[in-house]
Amino acid sequence: MTNPAISALAEAIGDRHVQTGDDIEPRFRTDLRGTLHAAPLCVVRPGSTEDVSAVMRIATAHHIPVTTQGGRTNTVRGAMSAETGIVLSLDRMTRIDDLDIKSMTLTVQAGAPLQMVQEAAAEAGFLVPLDLGSRGSATIGGVISTNAGGLRAVRWGVAREMVLGLEAVLADGTVADGLKKMLKDNAGYDWKHLMIGSEGTLGVVTRATLRLRPMPATTMTAFCALQSFDDVYDLLRDLDRDMGGQITSFELMWPELYHLVLDHYPERTAPLPRTFPLYVLVEAMGGDPAGDPARFEAALGTAIESKLVIDAVIAQSERERADLWAFREDIGLPMRAKGPMYAFDVGVGLSDIPETVRRTVAAVRTDYPDAFILTYGHAGDGNLHFVIGVGEYNDAAERRVDLAVFGAVKAARGSISAEHGIGLAKRDDLHFSRRPGEIALMRTLKRALDPDNILNPGKVINMDETFTGPVVA
Amino acid sequence: MTNPAISALAEAIGDRHVQTGDDIEPRFRTDLRGTLHAAPLCVVRPGSTEDVSAVMRIATAHHIPVTTQGGRTNTVRGAMSAETGIVLSLDRMTRIDDLDIKSMTLTVQAGAPLQMVQEAAAEAGFLVPLDLGSRGSATIGGVISTNAGGLRAVRWGVAREMVLGLEAVLADGTVADGLKKMLKDNAGYDWKHLMIGSEGTLGVVTRATLRLRPMPATTMTAFCALQSFDDVYDLLRDLDRDMGGQITSFELMWPELYHLVLDHYPERTAPLPRTFPLYVLVEAMGGDPAGDPARFEAALGTAIESKLVIDAVIAQSERERADLWAFREDIGLPMRAKGPMYAFDVGVGLSDIPETVRRTVAAVRTDYPDAFILTYGHAGDGNLHFVIGVGEYNDAAERRVDLAVFGAVKAARGSISAEHGIGLAKRDDLHFSRRPGEIALMRTLKRALDPDNILNPGKVINMDETFTGPVVA
Repeated sequence: MTNPAISALAEAIGDRHVQTGDDIEPRFRTDLRGTLHAAPLCVVRPGSTEDVSAVMRIATAHHIPVTTQGGRTNTVRGAMSAETGIVLSLDRMTRIDDLDIKSMTLTVQAGAPLQMVQEAAAEAGFLVPLDLGSRGSATIGGVISTNAGGLRAVRWGVAREMVLGLEAVLADGTVADGLKKMLKDNAGYDWKHLMIGSEGTLGVVTRATLRLRPMPATTMTAFCALQSFDDVYDLLRDLDRDMGGQITSFELMWPELYHLVLDHYPERTAPLPRTFPLYVLVEAMGGDPAGDPARFEAALGTAIESKLVIDAVIAQSERERADLWAFREDIGLPMRAKGPMYAFDVGVGLSDIPETVRRTVAAVRTDYPDAFILTYGHAGDGNLHFVIGVGEYNDAAERRVDLAVFGAVKAARGSISAEHGIGLAKRDDLHFSRRPGEIALMRTLKRALDPDNILNPGKVINMDETFTGPVVA
Repeated sequence: MTNPAISALAEAIGDRHVQTGDDIEPRFRTDLRGTLHAAPLCVVRPGSTEDVSAVMRIATAHHIPVTTQGGRTNTVRGAMSAETGIVLSLDRMTRIDDLDIKSMTLTVQAGAPLQMVQEAAAEAGFLVPLDLGSRGSATIGGVISTNAGGLRAVRWGVAREMVLGLEAVLADGTVADGLKKMLKDNAGYDWKHLMIGSEGTLGVVTRATLRLRPMPATTMTAFCALQSFDDVYDLLRDLDRDMGGQITSFELMWPELYHLVLDHYPERTAPLPRTFPLYVLVEAMGGDPAGDPARFEAALGTAIESKLVIDAVIAQSERERADLWAFREDIGLPMRAKGPMYAFDVGVGLSDIPETVRRTVAAVRTDYPDAFILTYGHAGDGNLHFVIGVGEYNDAAERRVDLAVFGAVKAARGSISAEHGIGLAKRDDLHFSRRPGEIALMRTLKRALDPDNILNPGKVINMDETFTGPVVA
């Protein structure tokens, strides 16, 4: 180890926790798609907040970029390091420091996988409302740093809403210790929200205190058919009103996706005919096993009477519930079977969804009249997913499809990334959803918190002041 | 008008919207207690975001401090200007730009009173969950800039949780336009949370898009007696679990306060005997008029069976509900009748409440064995209010009481201001609830966003680097 920075790191956190050269495990260089990226200068695996602080002090002293890694389930290349950088893996920091059932909080190190935390809370009778498909790999630090969203945001919000207290290490190694358990704190600036969702570019999240909820006793799930998108607004409002705020998921599926899944899994029974214009999977959670199912059925009954819903099935068992969710969740294989696709995760106001879909489809079909377009999403959150196949898969095609989608999003003042983040993949398209004053403010914040630009540099925001957005032909 | 800055302001936003000298209306110099403060250089009353931007450009050019005023209901002298400063009043900016019932959002200028916004939403069938006693005066910009809390945070969170999009004007006049309607947006840094709760020291909030909820159909209210604080944890958890997350308020009252109100209003009927060690006012809101009251009664019945509650009354009418709330809300007159008191608004984890109360009482009684101490609060949020009378009312006595309370808060890693903010009054005590790394980070943020220190200078944070906290004997 002749590199003085590497020597200093080995000295600070222990030789065996610093990997270099051929000793670097492939997992630290592999992204979600399995692509092996160039090896970084080194991988460090701190065991404590103090270790992370030491790493950042050394990185600052030697001007070396630092990219923090959690579960690497990120889709926007947010956790991939440069060859000249340090990969800071939190995979040794998985300790639950405190499960306070009186305060209904859980304090945990950032490297703990979400599922581990969910299970610890469940054992004590509590729910961690945040849930997503990658729960087994995604870490608490990762879901916080990317402000993960998931399937229950309409009721309990995104990751941000679950974080009561946060500890983070700043660029120069300063530990900002904001761990706390109360719901209300107006003593000074709420800097934690700046860390949440900033993808490791403003600081390294090391520990968090999460708010827990009493574990719901009931889950009611229905799959409904709608006559038109016009009915979505009233349906969501009425169901949430009638269920007294207990709607946890409101997932829209356009028919193309439903057909795709049905066709791919012919052995599965279709819960509803394939002929309807729109489908929605609704779930509610409550606390009254004796009364909740009837309340849910009555709320749906009212919706059917008022023609907001034209057909519906309610799951009568956990098995039936899983079967309904399978039409929403088992979409990966059917999609991949259709060939390479471009996937999008955008956000718009609920009232802007129809026009955003219309514009996107029209723009894509201008270039690709036969394009295959799937639309679905967490509609209750204004979160839409597009999956688009155009018959070719190359940079130019990707860019054309990007511009079609992002143009529609911009017209609706929407977000080009509702829950996946920006990372490297979408950095230079940030201008489609943020106005110049916002971009300027973000640059100011980045410069202030990371003056040497060593925290995951190149991600989230283009710091070149002359860059004012991509050239759009 | 010989002052060039005043001339420039008059030119920019109109002569009649700039008040100077004796023309300054007293309301702009008067705080919540009715104290008339020194007149500022001038009062400006912009009519639009563009006007606010012009004011900030002029203020920056002339290095003049700017203090933004909403409803001036603030208790920590956060909205009082220096004699050399501009008071920026948003009282002309009260327009509701957009009530989008499809997206369930409302976009409004910052000067609109909270109550006006609540009423506009209610007319369309929606609830603005944020509610507080000063709703008629407090403005949207004010509740956002101070991150107001209130009575329903345990269910719907504080002001922060209701803000989907924000528009703010920065120190140099830049407009950061982050208005949007979706629940999920992970495209870049969430700078709005830095503005929320920063009391006008990082920017001027000019417009906001709020999330609305379907108006609840039912409200159930109960007043309960508990045997001991030890039962609070299980009671809150069990009630919220049994009501499926519909508990909206969970307000604790120690018996001294209950007795004080009963004694002050002898004509009122006591809902419960005065002999119990602790009282809690519980409220839930739901969507099922046919079933909710029985569910609420059953949940309370379970609590009585398990001895978590030893006596309870449930309001059977809106009138009875108001009567129960009166024991929580009509506390001002009875308190004032006991002579001058020091009031506190602190936050700690729920599990830390008993020890915080014990420490506070012990510390106050060390100096003042006969001190009169009232304790109550939004316990579901970890938010405690102390009202303390010690028989003398002067700076030295106030400081002794401050130190007693803040010392107890610090021991619990709590907040010296759960919902009232810091302003000028608590600025130099910020160190009791924020660690040095946090204070350093806050200073970095203030310097970055307000390099000339013209945004409400002197409030929230002491920018003197040599100040590391008050001297505590």
